[in-house]
Amino acid sequence: MDGNMRLRSELGKSADDLRVHGGRIDAAARLYPSAPQPWIDLSTGINPIAWPVPQIGLARYQRLPLASEISAMLDAAAGFYGLPANAGIVPVPGSEIAIRLLPRLLPPGRVGILTPTYGSHAVAWREAGAEVLELTGLPDPGSGDLEHLVVVNPNNPDGRVLPCAELAAFAKAWTEAGHYLIVDEAFAEVAEGASLLSMPELPAGVVVLRSLGKFFGLAGLRVGFVVVAKPAVSAWHHSLGDWPVSGPACEIAALALRDGAWITATRTRLATDRKRQNHILEQAGFRVLGGTDLFGLFEAPDESDWLDHFAQAGILVRAFAATPQRYRIGLPADEAAWRRLELACRAASSPARRPNTAQSVTPRPAR
Amino acid sequence: MDGNMRLRSELGKSADDLRVHGGRIDAAARLYPSAPQPWIDLSTGINPIAWPVPQIGLARYQRLPLASEISAMLDAAAGFYGLPANAGIVPVPGSEIAIRLLPRLLPPGRVGILTPTYGSHAVAWREAGAEVLELTGLPDPGSGDLEHLVVVNPNNPDGRVLPCAELAAFAKAWTEAGHYLIVDEAFAEVAEGASLLSMPELPAGVVVLRSLGKFFGLAGLRVGFVVVAKPAVSAWHHSLGDWPVSGPACEIAALALRDGAWITATRTRLATDRKRQNHILEQAGFRVLGGTDLFGLFEAPDESDWLDHFAQAGILVRAFAATPQRYRIGLPADEAAWRRLELACRAASSPARRPNTAQSVTPRPAR
Repeated sequence: MDGNMRLRSELGKSADDLRVHGGRIDAAARLYPSAPQPWIDLSTGINPIAWPVPQIGLARYQRLPLASEISAMLDAAAGFYGLPANAGIVPVPGSEIAIRLLPRLLPPGRVGILTPTYGSHAVAWREAGAEVLELTGLPDPGSGDLEHLVVVNPNNPDGRVLPCAELAAFAKAWTEAGHYLIVDEAFAEVAEGASLLSMPELPAGVVVLRSLGKFFGLAGLRVGFVVVAKPAVSAWHHSLGDWPVSGPACEIAALALRDGAWITATRTRLATDRKRQNHILEQAGFRVLGGTDLFGLFEAPDESDWLDHFAQAGILVRAFAATPQRYRIGLPADEAAWRRLELACRAASSPARRPNTAQSVTPRPAR
Repeated sequence: MDGNMRLRSELGKSADDLRVHGGRIDAAARLYPSAPQPWIDLSTGINPIAWPVPQIGLARYQRLPLASEISAMLDAAAGFYGLPANAGIVPVPGSEIAIRLLPRLLPPGRVGILTPTYGSHAVAWREAGAEVLELTGLPDPGSGDLEHLVVVNPNNPDGRVLPCAELAAFAKAWTEAGHYLIVDEAFAEVAEGASLLSMPELPAGVVVLRSLGKFFGLAGLRVGFVVVAKPAVSAWHHSLGDWPVSGPACEIAALALRDGAWITATRTRLATDRKRQNHILEQAGFRVLGGTDLFGLFEAPDESDWLDHFAQAGILVRAFAATPQRYRIGLPADEAAWRRLELACRAASSPARRPNTAQSVTPRPAR
C-alpha cells in the first residue's frame, strides 16, 4: 500500500467514525486540516457551558473516596433527581459502563430497544450475545417475545418524551409480567416531569440511568448513577467494587447536584439558546424534526453533504448513516461559535456557495 | 433499641470495618473522637507523597476524552510498565473494577488464590458464585482442580515476590494446560524484575493488572490498566465502553507515567523510608515479617490491641482478623507523622503505658 492509499484508507475509516458517534473532533481536525480553529463541536448533546468546576484539593486524588464522601454525593443525587422510597442509587464511572454491564447483570434474553436512539445500548447487548429487536413503540406488556426493554427518555436524537405517568403505568405492567425495563434518562434534566424517579415506588425490574455528562456538561468527569429497587443494588456493588468513582469526581458531583441556582439559570439559558438555534437553522432551510433543550434534530433542505459543509467551517455536527438527510446539532458555547454557525448557514443558503451534492462523506485532506 | 445500644452496635460494626480494609479514616475518627488531629493513615500501602498533580484544564472535565488522549496515556503506560509484543493494554477506572469484572469475563470455574493476600480477589469470585481455594504456593500446572489462579506479585500484605523468570515459566505451563492466570501487580513498581510485562510475549490466558493507586499515590484518581494478549482485549472494551477513565485522569496518568525523574527519586526515597520505619518498629519490639518499599508487615511483641493503641495516637494501621498479632503499616508522609509514630512506639515500649491486652477491638468513644 503506498502512502496515498494508506492516507485515503485511514481517512475513509475516520470519516465513518464521524457518522458513528459524536465528539470525535480529533478525527475531524485530521480530516479537515485547513478548517478554522478552534473546532466547534456541536456533534454531542452536551451543555457547552458546563457547571464551573472549582479547584480540587490534592487529598481527593491521593486517598480513596471516604464512605462519607460517597454518601454525600449520593444524597445530593437523590435530592436533585428524586428517589423512590424503595430504591437505591449506585454511582458508576459514566453511564456508558452501566450500559455495558446491563447485559451481564440481567438474566439473558431478547431485548427490545425503542429506536432510533443512542447506539451504545444495541451494541452492548449484541456484543454480549443477546438478540436485539428495534421497536418503534412500547410493546404489549404481556408479550412473551422480549425479556428486556430499553427506553431512552427523553430520546436521543429525536427528543421524543414519554411522560412519566404513561411510562410508569407501562413499567408496572411490563415488570409484573416478569420483564426488565431500562430507562436511560441522560437528558431528563431538561424534560420536566419525564423522570421515573418521581415515582413513589420503583417497580422491581426497572433500571434508571442518570448522568452528569449532558446537562451539567461534565462528560469528561465520568459520573453517572444507576437507580434500582433496593434488592438489586448489591449486584451492582459487586460488579463495581467500593470506589467506582474518583475522589475529585465525588466532590464535584456532590457540589454540582446541589447547585440549585445554577440548575435553574441553566435550564432557562438552554431553552433560550435552543430557540435561537432553531431560528438560525430554519433560515438556512433546515426543518426542525425534534430535540431537547440540549440539541436539535434537523432535516437538511437537500441531499448534499452537510457534514462536510459544516466541517469546512470547523464545525462538527452529528450525521447518521441510516438517515443521511438528518443532522443532530448541539448548542454553541459563545458568541464566536454562534457567529460561525450563522455564517456557515448563510453561506449554505447562498446558491453560489451551496455544498456539493454527495451521498458519502468526501473529506478534503491537507488543503 | 435505646441510644446507647444503637451506638455500641454501630461502633462494633465500624470497628470490624477497620479490620476489613485499609483507608477507613472516617470510621476511625468517629470511633476515636479525642485522638490527635489530623489522623495519620498508615493503614494502606499508598505512597504518602503522591505524584504532584498539576491543575487540569476545564476542557478535560467537559468533553469525553479524545481517542488521541487515551492513546497518549496508553503509550505512557506501555513505556513505563513494558508491554509484551503480542499484548494490548486497556484502561480501567481503578483496578478494583477489573478485579470485579474478571469472574464475569473469564469462563466459569474454580479459582485458586495465593493467600494471605488482598481480600477483594476472593470476594469478587465468591460473589460471582465461584468456588475459591486458598493456596499457599503455586499449584501443579497440570492440575485439573482449578480453572483460574490469582497471584498478587509482590504480595500484599507480606511482600512475597515471585521473580519474573519463575512466574513466567509457571504462566506458560499453566496457560498451556488451558488455565487462566491473573497477576495483580499493584505494587510492582517497587519490585524490580518482578513484572510479567517484561516478557517478550504474554501467554494467552494471562491477565496482568497495574494501577496508579499505590506507587504514584493516586488512589483517588481511579486509574488502572489491564494487560492481556491482543485477542482478549475486545472483551474488556465491550465491558467498559470507550471512555472508562475520566478526562482529567487521562491527562494526569499520561504525565505521571512519563515522569522518569520523579519515579527514580521516589523509588530511592521509599527504600530509605522503609528502613527508617523498620528501625522505629523494631525499637518498639515489633518483628519485621515482610513488606515492600510501600508498607511493612510486622508481628507485634505481644497480643495486646495495637490497633487501639495506635488509634489513640490518631494513627490508623491495618490489622487482620485472621492473624491478630500482625499489622501492616504504611509510610508516614512528613516529619510530624514520623514523630507521632515514634512517640506512639516509644509510649508502647514503656511498661507503664503499655496498651491493654485484649483480643478484640475495644474502641473508646467520646473520651
